[in-house]
Amino acid sequence: MINLQVALGNRSYPIYIGSGLISHADLYSPHIKSNQVLLVTNETIAPLYLTSVLNCLHEYNCEQVVLPDGEQFKTLEVVTKVFDKLLSSRFGRNATLIALGGGVIGDMGGFAAACYQRGMPFLQIPTTLLAQVDSSVGGKTGVNHPLGKNMIGAFYQPQCVIADADVLDTLDDRQLSAGLAEVIKYGLIRDAEFFTWLEQNIEALLNRDKQALAFAIERSCINKAEVVSEDETETGIRATLNLGHTFGHAIETGAGYGKYLHGEAVAIGTCQAADLSRRKGWLTDADVERIITLFKKAKLPVNPPEELDAERFLELMSVDKKNSEGKIRLILLEQIGRATLPMKANQDLLEMTLRCYGRK
Amino acid sequence: MINLQVALGNRSYPIYIGSGLISHADLYSPHIKSNQVLLVTNETIAPLYLTSVLNCLHEYNCEQVVLPDGEQFKTLEVVTKVFDKLLSSRFGRNATLIALGGGVIGDMGGFAAACYQRGMPFLQIPTTLLAQVDSSVGGKTGVNHPLGKNMIGAFYQPQCVIADADVLDTLDDRQLSAGLAEVIKYGLIRDAEFFTWLEQNIEALLNRDKQALAFAIERSCINKAEVVSEDETETGIRATLNLGHTFGHAIETGAGYGKYLHGEAVAIGTCQAADLSRRKGWLTDADVERIITLFKKAKLPVNPPEELDAERFLELMSVDKKNSEGKIRLILLEQIGRATLPMKANQDLLEMTLRCYGRK
Repeated sequence: MINLQVALGNRSYPIYIGSGLISHADLYSPHIKSNQVLLVTNETIAPLYLTSVLNCLHEYNCEQVVLPDGEQFKTLEVVTKVFDKLLSSRFGRNATLIALGGGVIGDMGGFAAACYQRGMPFLQIPTTLLAQVDSSVGGKTGVNHPLGKNMIGAFYQPQCVIADADVLDTLDDRQLSAGLAEVIKYGLIRDAEFFTWLEQNIEALLNRDKQALAFAIERSCINKAEVVSEDETETGIRATLNLGHTFGHAIETGAGYGKYLHGEAVAIGTCQAADLSRRKGWLTDADVERIITLFKKAKLPVNPPEELDAERFLELMSVDKKNSEGKIRLILLEQIGRATLPMKANQDLLEMTLRCYGRK
Repeated sequence: MINLQVALGNRSYPIYIGSGLISHADLYSPHIKSNQVLLVTNETIAPLYLTSVLNCLHEYNCEQVVLPDGEQFKTLEVVTKVFDKLLSSRFGRNATLIALGGGVIGDMGGFAAACYQRGMPFLQIPTTLLAQVDSSVGGKTGVNHPLGKNMIGAFYQPQCVIADADVLDTLDDRQLSAGLAEVIKYGLIRDAEFFTWLEQNIEALLNRDKQALAFAIERSCINKAEVVSEDETETGIRATLNLGHTFGHAIETGAGYGKYLHGEAVAIGTCQAADLSRRKGWLTDADVERIITLFKKAKLPVNPPEELDAERFLELMSVDKKNSEGKIRLILLEQIGRATLPMKANQDLLEMTLRCYGRK
């Protein structure tokens, strides 16, 4: 088992990466502070892994909330069900919430934990590749609003993250590919060597080669932990983790939450960001081609949806969190392996990307 | 003008106390970070003070949300109206929220600011005595849940607090008295000298003597700032500020939000806590009499509502945030001017207080 530390002073915590971890009761117990435990999961994950986790918790007074599965349910209204359960169970602020699921469950569970009685401890057990390499690490929690993704939330760190590579066995191919989008992102923004490794090992990852997956998870988490430790609340470098996300969030919101998986939208958005970086004169045609090719090999979409035209994109992108005083700000690539901080987009070049890239 | 600092490291901020402050544009501008400002207020305050505040903000792109007035509207659903406005105005995370109103507006506005894009700056302009001396200072924000008061929230500090004593001119007598309940609290928990001063000056305060009010606000804020600086997230001494609040929250929830003002419920709850402290052998009969007398002179209720019997009290008190593993914990008084940390209640004595104190 790998034990990776996210260094955040008195909010530091470990990420455990390995096989069969969700059945190890001794991983949970040091992070649980009272006998009250609420397990939050969804309808897809509950039949697969709920029993394994509950078996580790039989000494606690353990309640459960099983939420519907999908990005379209990541709302304040659904989070309220978690508050209802905590309160009807008479759980105090020392109770522990365990979020067992993908990014949606982690974001909602974490946000519920952040807000319940102004903060209760919580554990992340990510069950998708995307959640293991990205969303479970770093304390970003929240829900969507009809007008924008992740617009309501909190920075709130978990007590630990338990990333069990074995649970990826039941992940469907589409979800696996979606996770790879964020893995590729780390290569693009700060780890050129990892990007090259991914080009060479993408087939092994798609074939769920355990060793390749374990390496990709670890390398991704190391990258993420380094960035988060340096800039917990995204006043600077942490924003680079959002490469492709401004385009991606616009796609998710514009197409309707749940149509595109987050990773799929990020893949398309990253290709758009790469195209814009080329227009800025930073990336070469060959760089952009390498990037698009890798996403395609990872079985990810690379072209924006037909129905979202440039005007609608601009409208949706204008509510992004990185924006400042109504100006769209974007992360771009200076080269493969080096991202810019958020910068005000050149309106002409951005519109060219939106009108031309991936359009027939 | 008094400028009182709440010392919280990089989250430190000033409380400005004085006359006519809401019309001083130069108090606002150092705390506003972009040209986007959202003013959140309620239907009672808007006709009285909205124009004065807007006159200070004409150089900004200023939007407004006017919410209904009353504790029964302190809900997640109503906070959503603030998110809707922020998003439909395309406001970014550097926009500034100004909460202009009493405790309900401050708590909701602060919570909206804490959650919007995971945190935007906000200013508190408290317009009730209660908000000026207590709820606007210290960063407790949140909303109620049908099963418990302030159960959903965040610790989130404002950029500054502007406490303008002149706005109390329009405060009705009932609201003024409600504020005095929290003023008296500071005397009881940590400032015996102030308690004695209050006994001598309660008439002046009720008659809205400006000098007396200014002194009471300042002394209360000094007490609050000291406690909050020492223990921001209530792991210890900050809990003493909740004297009478466990009983009080049960009264507010049990009677239905909006029936009792928060300060009224706290007055009753503090008398109950004093009665229990007497049963523990700490306060004398004479101490309890002094406390009840002062609340009565402040025109506050001191007896619990008939319809809440001991069983219902216990049920409602069992969801208090100070509780641990299902055990009710209370702040009691060792003497006038010294409170205990939260302690597990002696069940027999607590039931005696609930059955006997203030009952016919």
